Amino acid sequence: MQLIDGKAVADRIKQEIAQEVETICNAGGKRPHLAAVLVGHDGGSETYVAHKVKACEQCGFKSTLVRYESDVTEDELLRKVDELNNDPDIDGFIVQLPLPKHISEQKVIEAIDYRKDVDGFHPVNVGRMSIGLPCFVSATPAGIMELLARYEIETKGKHCVVLGRSNIVGKPVATLMMQKAYPGNATVTVCHSATPNIKEICRTADIIIAALGSPEFVTADMVKEGAVIIDVGTTRVPDASKKSGFKLTGDVKFDEVAPRCSFITPVPGGVGPMTIVSLMRNTLLAGKKAIYR
Amino acid sequence: MQLIDGKAVADRIKQEIAQEVETICNAGGKRPHLAAVLVGHDGGSETYVAHKVKACEQCGFKSTLVRYESDVTEDELLRKVDELNNDPDIDGFIVQLPLPKHISEQKVIEAIDYRKDVDGFHPVNVGRMSIGLPCFVSATPAGIMELLARYEIETKGKHCVVLGRSNIVGKPVATLMMQKAYPGNATVTVCHSATPNIKEICRTADIIIAALGSPEFVTADMVKEGAVIIDVGTTRVPDASKKSGFKLTGDVKFDEVAPRCSFITPVPGGVGPMTIVSLMRNTLLAGKKAIYR
Repeated sequence: MQLIDGKAVADRIKQEIAQEVETICNAGGKRPHLAAVLVGHDGGSETYVAHKVKACEQCGFKSTLVRYESDVTEDELLRKVDELNNDPDIDGFIVQLPLPKHISEQKVIEAIDYRKDVDGFHPVNVGRMSIGLPCFVSATPAGIMELLARYEIETKGKHCVVLGRSNIVGKPVATLMMQKAYPGNATVTVCHSATPNIKEICRTADIIIAALGSPEFVTADMVKEGAVIIDVGTTRVPDASKKSGFKLTGDVKFDEVAPRCSFITPVPGGVGPMTIVSLMRNTLLAGKKAIYR
Repeated sequence: MQLIDGKAVADRIKQEIAQEVETICNAGGKRPHLAAVLVGHDGGSETYVAHKVKACEQCGFKSTLVRYESDVTEDELLRKVDELNNDPDIDGFIVQLPLPKHISEQKVIEAIDYRKDVDGFHPVNVGRMSIGLPCFVSATPAGIMELLARYEIETKGKHCVVLGRSNIVGKPVATLMMQKAYPGNATVTVCHSATPNIKEICRTADIIIAALGSPEFVTADMVKEGAVIIDVGTTRVPDASKKSGFKLTGDVKFDEVAPRCSFITPVPGGVGPMTIVSLMRNTLLAGKKAIYR
């Protein structure tokens, strides 16, 4: 069994990006600039955004954090989106989700210029990804593909079972895994809450991508000997022994599943660190205008 | 075994649309107007466009056919797209594919205002469909869903195997079949040219949607007793006994597969007639501004 060290890969990629940024800047090019809009004080969102700002520093990017209290109006937020769309110094920006209930997330996402949508949530980027055109691929699916590639995991003709059909993980990663490319070219099955025989289907999988958000759902009896396990789950499970009061728990019962696998991602330290790095890579692509314009 | 009569369903839907159009017009509303752009004289394209124009008449739509010789330049075609985008009388339009090699199909598709893209090929519509937002769903996947619905075929929790991963059928129909809706909510497996064990996977399917374009690929030994078979294949196979010189052949070996099925679509007369009706329905939606604006 080989542990997929997402943190190590993420660190390496950040170094690669930082080197490229220095090369660009030394040649008189523009330093990539990411803006993040954070509404309110949700603990998870604060942490994510802080990690993103820190990753920008590590990559040599300029970063701007725009903060609003949770009573900001939708109009005010949309005006800021418009301002960022039109700010030539901003290469890409994100609006950290979730947003307060009185603001339509979909409206905000669609208001972002797709050419600056480094989160890859705008319908134009989702659609282009589905068709197989150059685009900003959203962070988690892109991070998973990168891990498979860095560990040179064979995917062609393999049976990849995706657990979960969310818009941000299950559906896009299924699309990427079926496309005629590496990583990809796999036979893909998507299971979800309405699938009656998930255990049975998982047992036929060469690769399982678990993105249900259901702690320790995947148990040893569901995993074929030698399977590859990508665990996207990150549920906060109460844990009095931790300073934070919770433990990040994956969708896979790691201790019993790991011995059966050829490759497995841990939680934390697997897919998680890769998502931020995917955002950094998209920001670099935006800065280089490598995809649009 | 019940034959799914796509032609009969299509005729019924055209009548339903025609009735709604009359109600709209009687109330002083605008008659839906579809334009079709046809480049060159490809036999298949001529036939499809003629069918579409005829279907417009049956639905009570206004239709406009714009013809170009195959030496039209990309610029000229893009100017026409722009003109149709800005023509307030045109509710929706299509550019019949394929286009001559010197014209970029993708560029033309993306030039179409997504609010008039009744073929549903623009990235905005593809992306919105993937996310599950209101949009123009492309004709073949929409037609398949409509057939499943009209025959009240159970899909929730069923294993749906999609053969083929094309942008216009395989990928979108897989996305629709997995969404939490009826028809849909199925466990979906997408197989393709790199799948080593298609036969074995098909034998586990409750529903097979065959869209490989490989004549008579699906044989009786691949089909579970009681399965539902949707045959999207329409390959022209030479046949001297036909006036046209060819026979439209599906992806399913109908004679041997049909006796095993609970439901099956014939070719021709199954999915085919539904695709044009889906285009009509999108045009009606465009005319009513039911999705955009």
